[in-house]
Amino acid sequence: MSFQVVRDEVKRRIESRVWPQGSVLPTETQLAQEFDCARATVNRALRELAEQGFVERKRKSGTRVKMAPSKQARLEIAPPRHTVEAQNAAYRYALVERKVVTSPAWLASQLDVSPETRILHVLCMHYANNHPFQLEERWINIDVVPDVEQADLTQTSPHEWLLKAAPFTEAEVAFFATAADGRLAEFLATTRGIPVMQTERTTRLNGRPVTFARMTHHPGYRIRTSY
Amino acid sequence: MSFQVVRDEVKRRIESRVWPQGSVLPTETQLAQEFDCARATVNRALRELAEQGFVERKRKSGTRVKMAPSKQARLEIAPPRHTVEAQNAAYRYALVERKVVTSPAWLASQLDVSPETRILHVLCMHYANNHPFQLEERWINIDVVPDVEQADLTQTSPHEWLLKAAPFTEAEVAFFATAADGRLAEFLATTRGIPVMQTERTTRLNGRPVTFARMTHHPGYRIRTSY
Repeated sequence: MSFQVVRDEVKRRIESRVWPQGSVLPTETQLAQEFDCARATVNRALRELAEQGFVERKRKSGTRVKMAPSKQARLEIAPPRHTVEAQNAAYRYALVERKVVTSPAWLASQLDVSPETRILHVLCMHYANNHPFQLEERWINIDVVPDVEQADLTQTSPHEWLLKAAPFTEAEVAFFATAADGRLAEFLATTRGIPVMQTERTTRLNGRPVTFARMTHHPGYRIRTSY
Repeated sequence: MSFQVVRDEVKRRIESRVWPQGSVLPTETQLAQEFDCARATVNRALRELAEQGFVERKRKSGTRVKMAPSKQARLEIAPPRHTVEAQNAAYRYALVERKVVTSPAWLASQLDVSPETRILHVLCMHYANNHPFQLEERWINIDVVPDVEQADLTQTSPHEWLLKAAPFTEAEVAFFATAADGRLAEFLATTRGIPVMQTERTTRLNGRPVTFARMTHHPGYRIRTSY
């Protein structure tokens, strides 16, 4: 029997989960018996499957079906300061506006709060090397985070302030492309109609809405991750 | 001493990691002694911190500093069939083109292969209820995945075929917004210049490049996740 036949049968058993991820394969001697072939043939088959990433071979513990790499990318939703500084760029923050409002209807529905809910609305800019990096627009539920009403947001962005002061238990996030309208274009120093990426994020604390934020990234921004 | 003072001091110790995540707090009796106050005062402070999500209280094991929820979103990079069917829409796949080419220069640089490398280039469409859902353009390294040259991609998308046939150990992914050019607009049945989101993904097997894919999502597509 050729090593290819052994290799393909072992591969079939791994793919069909006869031998599930993380399980230990029979020994080469056992496989040689089952397939009625030389142990060297099994060895060659397993060596090739190891090169292809299907199995891991360890001197002591034998051959094990490799855990599939995670098919999930992980994205850290970090404050822009971290992202900018990680690129060795100079970070600058500017508060544009802060105002206590009652929840507009769209936000009441987004956060599932009553329209009378008091909300701190914050608009601020993040810069990298003095170029616009991100416009952050954020609505914070004063009922759940009462301290925010007195918070100094002239030096610290609401994102960073909340990270320290307001725990959350659940978050929802969405990424999408949109065309910059006149206001976005002005903040991001670009042209109206330019495609930009937005990130929207809602966090809750045991079901109670903490904050809704819409981050508009500068044109050309790429969210990257590896796994 | 008021319960607010106790609450704020406990909170400070949690935030400054004097009491790290997952650690068990001293008992209420111990804290009452330390703060020189009634046990009921400590109890009220801890109850409020539990409501705010800082600590968890269990009858038997006492009060524990809550593990912070993950600050990382997880994104599954699933074949469109899964995403479409999860929305209860009818999925349809169409192969537009497949062709063996030698690596164009930009791809050789992207994958870090020589320009003579033989590449299977595949262009295909994914539909949801007969509306364009995603254009998938993919380049597969035939050296690393020789079987793909004979693969039938008329019924199965290359993404799904690779998931079954070609393991990978590392992946890089990037999301960004772009304007649909004439070709994209035609495939996605939209207007030239419309903002669309693209996902680019490279996978490797123990360092060897397997595939590079560029997925263009239909206008209005939102990548969503919760954590």
